[in-house]
Amino acid sequence: MEIKVMHQVMEWNEDVSDAVKAELSRHRVCLINVLGSPGAGKTSTIVSLVERLRSKYRIGVIEGDITGQIDAEQIDALGLPVVQLDTDGACHIEAMSIQHILPHFDLDSLDVLFVENIGNLVCPAEFNIGESFRLAILSVPEGDDKVEKYPLMFSTSQALAINKYDLKDYFGFDDERVERSARGINPEIVLFRTSSRDGLGLDELAGWIDRRIDAVLSSEDENKEG
Amino acid sequence: MEIKVMHQVMEWNEDVSDAVKAELSRHRVCLINVLGSPGAGKTSTIVSLVERLRSKYRIGVIEGDITGQIDAEQIDALGLPVVQLDTDGACHIEAMSIQHILPHFDLDSLDVLFVENIGNLVCPAEFNIGESFRLAILSVPEGDDKVEKYPLMFSTSQALAINKYDLKDYFGFDDERVERSARGINPEIVLFRTSSRDGLGLDELAGWIDRRIDAVLSSEDENKEG
Repeated sequence: MEIKVMHQVMEWNEDVSDAVKAELSRHRVCLINVLGSPGAGKTSTIVSLVERLRSKYRIGVIEGDITGQIDAEQIDALGLPVVQLDTDGACHIEAMSIQHILPHFDLDSLDVLFVENIGNLVCPAEFNIGESFRLAILSVPEGDDKVEKYPLMFSTSQALAINKYDLKDYFGFDDERVERSARGINPEIVLFRTSSRDGLGLDELAGWIDRRIDAVLSSEDENKEG
Repeated sequence: MEIKVMHQVMEWNEDVSDAVKAELSRHRVCLINVLGSPGAGKTSTIVSLVERLRSKYRIGVIEGDITGQIDAEQIDALGLPVVQLDTDGACHIEAMSIQHILPHFDLDSLDVLFVENIGNLVCPAEFNIGESFRLAILSVPEGDDKVEKYPLMFSTSQALAINKYDLKDYFGFDDERVERSARGINPEIVLFRTSSRDGLGLDELAGWIDRRIDAVLSSEDENKEG
């Protein structure tokens, strides 16, 4: 299947994010914004979640990248609807780009849309893209000081997966420090320890995502009836 | 020693970068822009280079961070002049910030100024900051596709250290792929395999940096005489 490539459009963001959210709500779709550094494991986590959730939900994916379509090909191989968003060098996705992409999906045939943001701990956190919630991924090799050094991403995310957890001992990674600093700026954040290598924590993460999607879709149903 | 905290100033960049470069040349200082993802090992690599080069050169450091001064404290402990540049959430360092910081150093007592840029594979690559050359650091856990996905940083750097090389087998990291893609966009780039854990490749990297600094300072001497 040929992968669509869309180009980033710059424009004022918050109004557009609200419009995207309203459009998704009309079609009863939950958008999940997946954030993290380059190589934190965003794609592999999305793949793991898709495997666990696809029997219950109809899932689509938007793959953000500076250039190329390495990740989109991986999603395409799963047989899911996927659009590649090429930011042409820009360091984050804006809501306007999502708005331009939505017509390329049959939204009435979707329940969930994962958006893999650009690999970057900084800029993507500043831009809402119409998401129902955010999943941040921090991998062990990045170091246990990253929540303190890049707080915005962790203060605006509803869940945090500490990924590549199999390397915790090798790196002397202090996950208590991460938990403490994350809760310090975001007391409601839900933490998971995950590893694509051995499957650690992925059922728990998928279970939480499942309940969260369920809540979003139920509230969208209520809005429709109201 | 109290660490100075400076705040990022936004303004048009290239003219200022040239002015910074001229100022550094007048004082016979070589500025090295160190770039890479969060947790790639920028600070520890700078520390390793300082240990190997400080008997020959007088070294200062500017530590760029979104917030906080975790890295600056590590440099401060080495007894080097260090200034913390706090970007207040911005994702890269601009030349204007370096220009504002330079008066806080006694430039005539320095030969080398390392600048640790913000942990980010994207934006910092777009902004010259008056550097003599760039050292990019890519760590093995980030994955071997990163040069293809984030090309600008690697096409504009003179050297690339593939760091945390001790994890190559664990991650099945294909360093030939990295070398091929890096040389494809930047045939002149010099590659090193490094690890702070076991010291691998750090003498070689320091040797190359040494020769490069030497060349920069000699050419600044010639400019002065000319």
